Amino acid sequence: MSKPVCAIVGAGEGLGRSLAAKFASEGFDIGMVSRSEESGRAAAEASVAARAETNIGHFAADARQPESVERAMESLVNTLGEVDILIYNVCDGFPRCEPLDMEYTQMESVFRLEVVGAFAAAKSILPAMRQRGAGTILFSSATAALRGSASYPLYAIGKFGLRALSQSLARAYAKDGVHIAHVRLDCDLDVPRMRELYGDRYEPGMLADPDAVAESYWLLHCQPRAAWSNEVELRPHTENWTC
Amino acid sequence: MSKPVCAIVGAGEGLGRSLAAKFASEGFDIGMVSRSEESGRAAAEASVAARAETNIGHFAADARQPESVERAMESLVNTLGEVDILIYNVCDGFPRCEPLDMEYTQMESVFRLEVVGAFAAAKSILPAMRQRGAGTILFSSATAALRGSASYPLYAIGKFGLRALSQSLARAYAKDGVHIAHVRLDCDLDVPRMRELYGDRYEPGMLADPDAVAESYWLLHCQPRAAWSNEVELRPHTENWTC
Amino acid sequence: MSKPVCAIVGAGEGLGRSLAAKFASEGFDIGMVSRSEESGRAAAEASVAARAETNIGHFAADARQPESVERAMESLVNTLGEVDILIYNVCDGFPRCEPLDMEYTQMESVFRLEVVGAFAAAKSILPAMRQRGAGTILFSSATAALRGSASYPLYAIGKFGLRALSQSLARAYAKDGVHIAHVRLDCDLDVPRMRELYGDRYEPGMLADPDAVAESYWLLHCQPRAAWSNEVELRPHTENWTC
Amino acid sequence: MSKPVCAIVGAGEGLGRSLAAKFASEGFDIGMVSRSEESGRAAAEASVAARAETNIGHFAADARQPESVERAMESLVNTLGEVDILIYNVCDGFPRCEPLDMEYTQMESVFRLEVVGAFAAAKSILPAMRQRGAGTILFSSATAALRGSASYPLYAIGKFGLRALSQSLARAYAKDGVHIAHVRLDCDLDVPRMRELYGDRYEPGMLADPDAVAESYWLLHCQPRAAWSNEVELRPHTENWTC
Repeated sequence: MSKPVCAIVGAGEGLGRSLAAKFASEGFDIGMVSRSEESGRAAAEASVAARAETNIGHFAADARQPESVERAMESLVNTLGEVDILIYNVCDGFPRCEPLDMEYTQMESVFRLEVVGAFAAAKSILPAMRQRGAGTILFSSATAALRGSASYPLYAIGKFGLRALSQSLARAYAKDGVHIAHVRLDCDLDVPRMRELYGDRYEPGMLADPDAVAESYWLLHCQPRAAWSNEVELRPHTENWTC
Repeated sequence: MSKPVCAIVGAGEGLGRSLAAKFASEGFDIGMVSRSEESGRAAAEASVAARAETNIGHFAADARQPESVERAMESLVNTLGEVDILIYNVCDGFPRCEPLDMEYTQMESVFRLEVVGAFAAAKSILPAMRQRGAGTILFSSATAALRGSASYPLYAIGKFGLRALSQSLARAYAKDGVHIAHVRLDCDLDVPRMRELYGDRYEPGMLADPDAVAESYWLLHCQPRAAWSNEVELRPHTENWTC
Repeated sequence: MSKPVCAIVGAGEGLGRSLAAKFASEGFDIGMVSRSEESGRAAAEASVAARAETNIGHFAADARQPESVERAMESLVNTLGEVDILIYNVCDGFPRCEPLDMEYTQMESVFRLEVVGAFAAAKSILPAMRQRGAGTILFSSATAALRGSASYPLYAIGKFGLRALSQSLARAYAKDGVHIAHVRLDCDLDVPRMRELYGDRYEPGMLADPDAVAESYWLLHCQPRAAWSNEVELRPHTENWTC
Repeated sequence: MSKPVCAIVGAGEGLGRSLAAKFASEGFDIGMVSRSEESGRAAAEASVAARAETNIGHFAADARQPESVERAMESLVNTLGEVDILIYNVCDGFPRCEPLDMEYTQMESVFRLEVVGAFAAAKSILPAMRQRGAGTILFSSATAALRGSASYPLYAIGKFGLRALSQSLARAYAKDGVHIAHVRLDCDLDVPRMRELYGDRYEPGMLADPDAVAESYWLLHCQPRAAWSNEVELRPHTENWTC
């Protein structure tokens, strides 16, 4: 008998890995989309560790190339079956710069990654979800989706656009039974990239545990359709609210 | 061995009843605070129906009299034990009027009900929660907490204040391990009072199922403390977003 | 020939004084409502300094007693004529405390000051404004109207309520030609009380110039009714945005 | 002696024309950037009608090509002098579609128009403004910048991005004396394109008068730098608030 399928675009070492393990432990097969099978190895291993018989598939795509995302998602469906939950969880390199130093190509690149790629992934499976009258699509986002930034303007521009996409999809297709939500992480995650960025400032416990975040994604997926959240914020109990 | 305790202020026939049944079914004892035992009968019956061995206590209070709320909460703790989750869920009569027709006493009355009473309830159990480093406090609210209204200005004034209270408590005490959230219902509930208000316009399915809403309250309570939501919106999949 | 009338509730030494001077300089007569004539002396002197022939009236009221506000406004209208612009600009003592230390009487007191008193003032002149199809009502507020606070919860509760009132009035009565706006000052003002609170931390230039703020109130009043703002933020160019 | 310069990108028959006339009447020279001189003719004529001796320059650019915007702005500065106020006011064709019907190229096109083009225009004159310690940059936007849409998702995606850009620039460069604001028009304008879209539903008075909107832009420009608004909403007094 076929198991439900969780597709994760951006399944790397950080939150993607925790999401893969969580949904595997709940009985889902895991389809991972990322640049290379190598980049998804940690997530794959975590999925099998969570439940040995998890079926895992890796499908290569460049999230900045929407057609490549579409092809990967198509292969994913052909291999594992219809997608029950899609999590778009790509991660940019957090390029820090002042606004005047943004290059046009950087702006277009972040837009492709955060918005066009997210739409390509959603578009690949939304029609089937609408037909079945069920499904979940979660977009990993950040407080940058709500406020511009003097230091990370590219990130804000991308996340604002992602939120506009998420709201537009939810307003249009919730009525067909598809749960679409924008998940704002109001915190930094305790993942390898962040530890690097923090450098000497890093202390254990100051960043958010990605396993806990994955648990809250799971609980969001469990909401009955008569009581859905579409805009969700998540922060550790120790975090100061940023807005 | 003692069971966890769920205290519900405003446990009537509507959402309060569904919340009582849900937390009873999850193994909680249920402490109900409302004006009279009669008003809590439906919630009590639903709790027992959900799990026969549920311990149930009713504690009378007028939510507009903070000292009476304090006394009721104290009795509740003495009878059932320390509170693990408090849900403040009082319901006003939705007095419709244009802003210029508000009376000063009505303004103060709604403020006492929505804000002072909520604070009294929270204050009764928060110090113990902080000491234990655990606990949940949920405030039932509405979209009126985010927008003024030409038709229900009293309701907006009350809910804005409730949201200010919820945010202030969360910002101050989350770090102690207490999960405090404002739950905005972006919908009307399918409860007796609402069916009356809708009158001829009522159709089954157009209002939100309170059992589903109670389920999403439960999932919110289940969030791990490293990934909490403090401002939550809930709406049926059929609902148009109001903001 | 009669001159236009500006009524300021809370006309003290700070912003109230600057508002009085600005509107006096633009040809308005100034009606001041505050606890005592003494408290309005600075504003009165500034008004005359701005334009020697300004008619000035002081009308005593306790903003926490809505009936006393009504009586003062009535006297103001009888003395100076119909009000063209009302500015509700009361100032509380910014009591700092953690949420659990709030007293019920403090909560009710701040609600009376920020919300009930504001409504009493508006109610005194709104019917006449609606009849004339013109008029402006501005509520002085703060970023506390948008976010709860771990340190100033009373202030947040009051300002949230004031914003609910302002939005409700605007949604109901803008169509009658009355311009109603909530002015969020996203800064501390360079006024005597603030200098005290800053103490040793005070440096010239770090707080906002109240004359400049009064100028922006004036420009808001000048907006044509086909292009009104109802929610306005004001901050010095040097200010970090708080949300 | 040289007059102050107002640069308008997107100076067509609608709001652009009213803005040109308003700033001309206040003594500004007008630099218009649009696709063709033909498209800017109405704005040019209105400027001269407002003040006969207004110097007017037209500079052709395709707002979707940032380099062409840069070149046009450079010519504008060389011809008319340093820019005192830049208004980015481009107008897309409001393509209506459901989210699933968006094409990737449309998404990138609206992003180029609303965000990249706006940045190119700002970037062309911001360094000089920072050096002078003065200047104003206003971005014409809409309520679509705050909410996704089931019917106009492309518009929402563009305007969310524009708002992120505006906030990022303001947070970074306000301190240098440059006033940067996002102007949300919470209404439809009474301009030729809108009358077409409304078709039979059009009634005089139901849409916002662009001359009044231009007046409120002017008042925003007049704010002293110690009391700036950075996020502004404008709506006619007859408008229902959309959020």
